[in-house]
Amino acid sequence: MESCAPPIAEHPHRLPSLQAAMSRRRTLAVGLIGPGRVGSVLLAQLRAAQERLLRDTGLALKLCGVAASRRMWLDCDDPELNAQHDAQTWRPTDLEQFAAHVRGDEGRHAMLVDCSANDMVASKYSYWLASGLHVVTPNKLASSGPLSRWQAIRAASQHGGRFRYEATVCAGLPVVQTLRDLLDTGDQLLSVEGMFSGTLAWLCCQYDGKRPFSALVREAHALGYTEPDPRDDLSGMDVARKLVILAREAGWPMSLHDVAVESLVPAELAEVPLEEFMARLEELDAPMAARLAEAHAHQGVLRHVASLDRNGRAQVGLQALPSPHPFAHTRLTDNIVQFRTQRYRDNPLLVQGPGAGPEVTAAGIFADLLRIAESLQVRA
Amino acid sequence: MESCAPPIAEHPHRLPSLQAAMSRRRTLAVGLIGPGRVGSVLLAQLRAAQERLLRDTGLALKLCGVAASRRMWLDCDDPELNAQHDAQTWRPTDLEQFAAHVRGDEGRHAMLVDCSANDMVASKYSYWLASGLHVVTPNKLASSGPLSRWQAIRAASQHGGRFRYEATVCAGLPVVQTLRDLLDTGDQLLSVEGMFSGTLAWLCCQYDGKRPFSALVREAHALGYTEPDPRDDLSGMDVARKLVILAREAGWPMSLHDVAVESLVPAELAEVPLEEFMARLEELDAPMAARLAEAHAHQGVLRHVASLDRNGRAQVGLQALPSPHPFAHTRLTDNIVQFRTQRYRDNPLLVQGPGAGPEVTAAGIFADLLRIAESLQVRA
Repeated sequence: MESCAPPIAEHPHRLPSLQAAMSRRRTLAVGLIGPGRVGSVLLAQLRAAQERLLRDTGLALKLCGVAASRRMWLDCDDPELNAQHDAQTWRPTDLEQFAAHVRGDEGRHAMLVDCSANDMVASKYSYWLASGLHVVTPNKLASSGPLSRWQAIRAASQHGGRFRYEATVCAGLPVVQTLRDLLDTGDQLLSVEGMFSGTLAWLCCQYDGKRPFSALVREAHALGYTEPDPRDDLSGMDVARKLVILAREAGWPMSLHDVAVESLVPAELAEVPLEEFMARLEELDAPMAARLAEAHAHQGVLRHVASLDRNGRAQVGLQALPSPHPFAHTRLTDNIVQFRTQRYRDNPLLVQGPGAGPEVTAAGIFADLLRIAESLQVRA
Repeated sequence: MESCAPPIAEHPHRLPSLQAAMSRRRTLAVGLIGPGRVGSVLLAQLRAAQERLLRDTGLALKLCGVAASRRMWLDCDDPELNAQHDAQTWRPTDLEQFAAHVRGDEGRHAMLVDCSANDMVASKYSYWLASGLHVVTPNKLASSGPLSRWQAIRAASQHGGRFRYEATVCAGLPVVQTLRDLLDTGDQLLSVEGMFSGTLAWLCCQYDGKRPFSALVREAHALGYTEPDPRDDLSGMDVARKLVILAREAGWPMSLHDVAVESLVPAELAEVPLEEFMARLEELDAPMAARLAEAHAHQGVLRHVASLDRNGRAQVGLQALPSPHPFAHTRLTDNIVQFRTQRYRDNPLLVQGPGAGPEVTAAGIFADLLRIAESLQVRA
């Protein structure tokens, strides 16, 4: 091909980087709900990045409120409000007032980040989105909760603010966006398989029959690898929620009750007080030992797997996998997810790594925030 | 927290999906350079998605030109031009005219997709970007070529059009964007390790010493797994280019000559004609057998690995890896990349899957196109 452009150096339109960033300057007001472990790390990440983002991309992040369950802080920049209350005053939490404050004047870009694990907060998403607020969350309750609420959220986000929730599945690993890209470019999902619980992955990796399963649960509990009540992990329900989120992302109108969940907690221990459960933990050992023996009999390993196929079959539970299976070789607490699609039919696309922890979860939320910020129109 | 929002059903602002999409309607003019294997699959993917994208997202993709090396086709919608030339007329390729046609009127969104493997096309990116055209490419030449050209492209894209190149590394696998997200959210890259060549991965996986290495190369060549000249794979240079792309993405100003590349082609065979090379292929066997024996002596496996660390050490070549290493368990032609960062320090983030082929490469380009389209402002 013939060259037709003038040499680069002669081109008159290029601006230096700083000017360029300023010409794309836009402000995003951010309000955080739930300043807990993840929320407070996110605040630290955002603060550390503010100057760099403004310099390199023209994005001015303006943190204008934090709402905990009882108290909230509003960075009021309205002089009248400031006259009545001191700026940076804590006051009783009122989410309606909080959202209105973050939203601010007509036409400003504003986002709520929900790091609570509160179902009532999730109930407000569709309202906030319809009013033009963007919403980002690692909270699984909206995306895996009642289907009608989820559909209302999706409908609201098509018109108003944008809704993102990458960190609901495997924290900062690129899972939801990867699935989205596959589908948006016209690929067809055939199946998803994964290990979505670092705790269960650790327990299965460690469990070789030399020590009873109950001893490993006690150790994981003492190390803080499990939830305060280990049944929250062992029941498989948290994993099932992640599977529902991916199914819905693929357009399959699935709910939690559509997932066949095998709990590792015997039915008679499901409802007893925590103390009694911990005392009777040895009752898990016999059924687990039987499953392990079965896996070993087939030269396999025992893993806790979630799977979903396009016939609507969704399962969560123990599986005996042949030892060359990629899930047999993960690192201790790693999460793993593999997508089999029309284009990735023979060899699936696989993402693996730590899928929990405040730093990586906050980074997943932050990446969502940046993805939305990229799409914001420059406003004076 | 108290509920403060009215019930969802009462909310007055929600629009039906179609209306919502129309309210966000925007047109993106697209010109394709290089309608080869990847380019023609991309055209098919774009055409298949046009109707869905318009309906669901309000994005109208308008294909307005295809430029091959000698001829180009312009979908001229200017009545005067149509009077002089028939619409859909092929004419001799003139990239200046092509870009001007795709750019069209001031203010329209326009993108060039470069699926050529042509260095002269890559030389025009910065000019096109500065003029407001977006550029998307799987062409490695810009991102791994001369550093000054790369810097000019980056500078131009900060002001003008956007530049994306996910498919330059591992085709459709989420690699460049994943690294970008890690860095943009404030993480620090410590190292990258990967197997970026499906061909070399296949050769290493198959090579267990029972058959000579040369026989495997002949088989791969016959199956079409290698480039027409297998030295293009065996030299490791294509892998080195991908490593340079990731290094630059991380902000490290690296060039090809900074990478220590171990070629699997003996120096005396590097420049001989292809026919002679194929005839003398057995000369690869002794050195490869020695490397394999060394790996086996340490109970390891032989893999072709690219690695990069923050001290600027970049290497491409054979490595003996311990058998529990994740690279030891990939599926035949899979690519794999693992990022070790400040946040993913103990357990890295890992992406794996097929990293070549027209369908997945085109999908990687398409995802880049959609990422840019998301950020386009609505214009009447």
